Amino acid sequence: MYRPEVKILDVTIRDGGLMNNWDFPKSMVKEVFYGLAEAGVDYVELGYRADKRVFSTDEFGPWRFCNEEDLRDVAYECDTKIAVMCDVGRTNLDDFVPKSESIISMVRVACYVPEVDEGLKIAQYMKDLGYEVSLNLMAVSTVEEGLINEALRKIAQSRVDLVYIVDSFGYYYSEHIRYLTEKYIHALPGKAIGIHTHNNRQLAFSNSVEALLAGAQFVDCSLYGMGRAAGNCTTELILSFMDNPKYDLRPVLDLIERYFVRLKEDLKWGYELPYLVTGVLNQHPRTALAYIKEQGQGSKRSLRDFYETHIRQIKSK
Amino acid sequence: MYRPEVKILDVTIRDGGLMNNWDFPKSMVKEVFYGLAEAGVDYVELGYRADKRVFSTDEFGPWRFCNEEDLRDVAYECDTKIAVMCDVGRTNLDDFVPKSESIISMVRVACYVPEVDEGLKIAQYMKDLGYEVSLNLMAVSTVEEGLINEALRKIAQSRVDLVYIVDSFGYYYSEHIRYLTEKYIHALPGKAIGIHTHNNRQLAFSNSVEALLAGAQFVDCSLYGMGRAAGNCTTELILSFMDNPKYDLRPVLDLIERYFVRLKEDLKWGYELPYLVTGVLNQHPRTALAYIKEQGQGSKRSLRDFYETHIRQIKSK
Repeated sequence: MYRPEVKILDVTIRDGGLMNNWDFPKSMVKEVFYGLAEAGVDYVELGYRADKRVFSTDEFGPWRFCNEEDLRDVAYECDTKIAVMCDVGRTNLDDFVPKSESIISMVRVACYVPEVDEGLKIAQYMKDLGYEVSLNLMAVSTVEEGLINEALRKIAQSRVDLVYIVDSFGYYYSEHIRYLTEKYIHALPGKAIGIHTHNNRQLAFSNSVEALLAGAQFVDCSLYGMGRAAGNCTTELILSFMDNPKYDLRPVLDLIERYFVRLKEDLKWGYELPYLVTGVLNQHPRTALAYIKEQGQGSKRSLRDFYETHIRQIKSK
Repeated sequence: MYRPEVKILDVTIRDGGLMNNWDFPKSMVKEVFYGLAEAGVDYVELGYRADKRVFSTDEFGPWRFCNEEDLRDVAYECDTKIAVMCDVGRTNLDDFVPKSESIISMVRVACYVPEVDEGLKIAQYMKDLGYEVSLNLMAVSTVEEGLINEALRKIAQSRVDLVYIVDSFGYYYSEHIRYLTEKYIHALPGKAIGIHTHNNRQLAFSNSVEALLAGAQFVDCSLYGMGRAAGNCTTELILSFMDNPKYDLRPVLDLIERYFVRLKEDLKWGYELPYLVTGVLNQHPRTALAYIKEQGQGSKRSLRDFYETHIRQIKSK
């Protein structure tokens, strides 16, 4: 028994790109796309389509920008659809062509709750161009519930196809995830709900499963969990969970063995204590990333001090 | 709101010892005990008390045997109680003195379901000596339910204080854990239920939380997850979950920073794909450990082959 409408969306290149400035070689991204297609993964997010007036192409690799020609070099139109993400305030609408001229199927608009009006403007624009559109409402764990409800009311009136619960800081337990999934489903009739988790507390996979069991239809994941800081729910775990026989774990084992075990040794995403601390305290991981960088540069600042500093800052608010 | 009867049992030295033949320096074990006591951890399992006629003291470190004098060198009687484990077939009952002469509070008897009669004999002997006693029924994920029920009926009639659900292979999802916890509670009136998990599918912590929410009273964990193969539920995550103000995360951050980050780099427990495969397939991790060892020795055998070999073996059964 499985729900055929459930879709896997792999975010490796997009979210993993946060760890290497989206500087993946084309040959590798091509193998990733082909391998994920062979595995039956439904959507592959190949990066951001970011505004080149905001980010320099000298500083960032091609998957920060996702030009059509770059996408066509690594992917092809098939049952596995291509997604890109764009951020409020970092998107040039003129960079997007009508869906009929693009290899992209889905545009995912990421915004914080106070930016929801702006996010919806971009989303409606993308709908007008003919794309499937998701709205990824980030960092909701830090937002007062009334404001979330208000944002959901606005989204309900939009033509967005899909709305994501995003546990940006890896803070939520399964009970929160179930509550939010049921809330989003109830508030957004006719729209699909997705789940995007981070692994600060080793709950990314279990929370993703919880959301699916509660009725979510899209699940984000990345190969070997590649993503910023503690990383994401892993694609291999999600594939191993799915009963739908269209999915095949083996091409994903090949990809991880070939690329991601070594990449993880170099770039070091995944569970580490500073990320546990920011997750537990419902904070952005930027201070943890900075702490780890300082340790690498010889800092002797203790974890206890890192933790206590956060506690003090929270108490003084 | 918290349940004051919930107890944390740290298994770092016992389960982690599987990774280094229990060869931890005394100074370190002492710091571990003192740190865990400062953190408010309720029980610390300092190793196995294994039969010296079965295991050589030349081959294994002191925490394979847990002599009273070694335990007294590293620990003291306080609110944090000392546990040791013994296995059916590997235990010399004459090694145990009455509780009044021992620093040990709890003896944990590990057995497989078909060995339950033998396990209960040891357990009753330990009760007669005056110890708190747990029975840890291993690898239940591979046992037909009728046999589990029969074992539980026998245990219900014993004087065992505490019975553990042990997900030896890291196979279970939260729904299994909830089902088993409720089953054990129902079948074992008057006894406490414990949960012991492994992290093959990154579910060790979430499944431990699930068991606690379903009514389990004891939770096993280890510092930074140290344990065989994919390792265990981590002590720091469990402490971060607890609302009881007696617990303090900070001494555990100190211990991990001082010892376990480096130990993990050397001994390499934790989530890896071969352990994911054995977890998904409900198999003992020994083939995964052997595969990883072979890779370290230059083997080029692919993960895909490792996975497919297991699938074939399961199908041919």
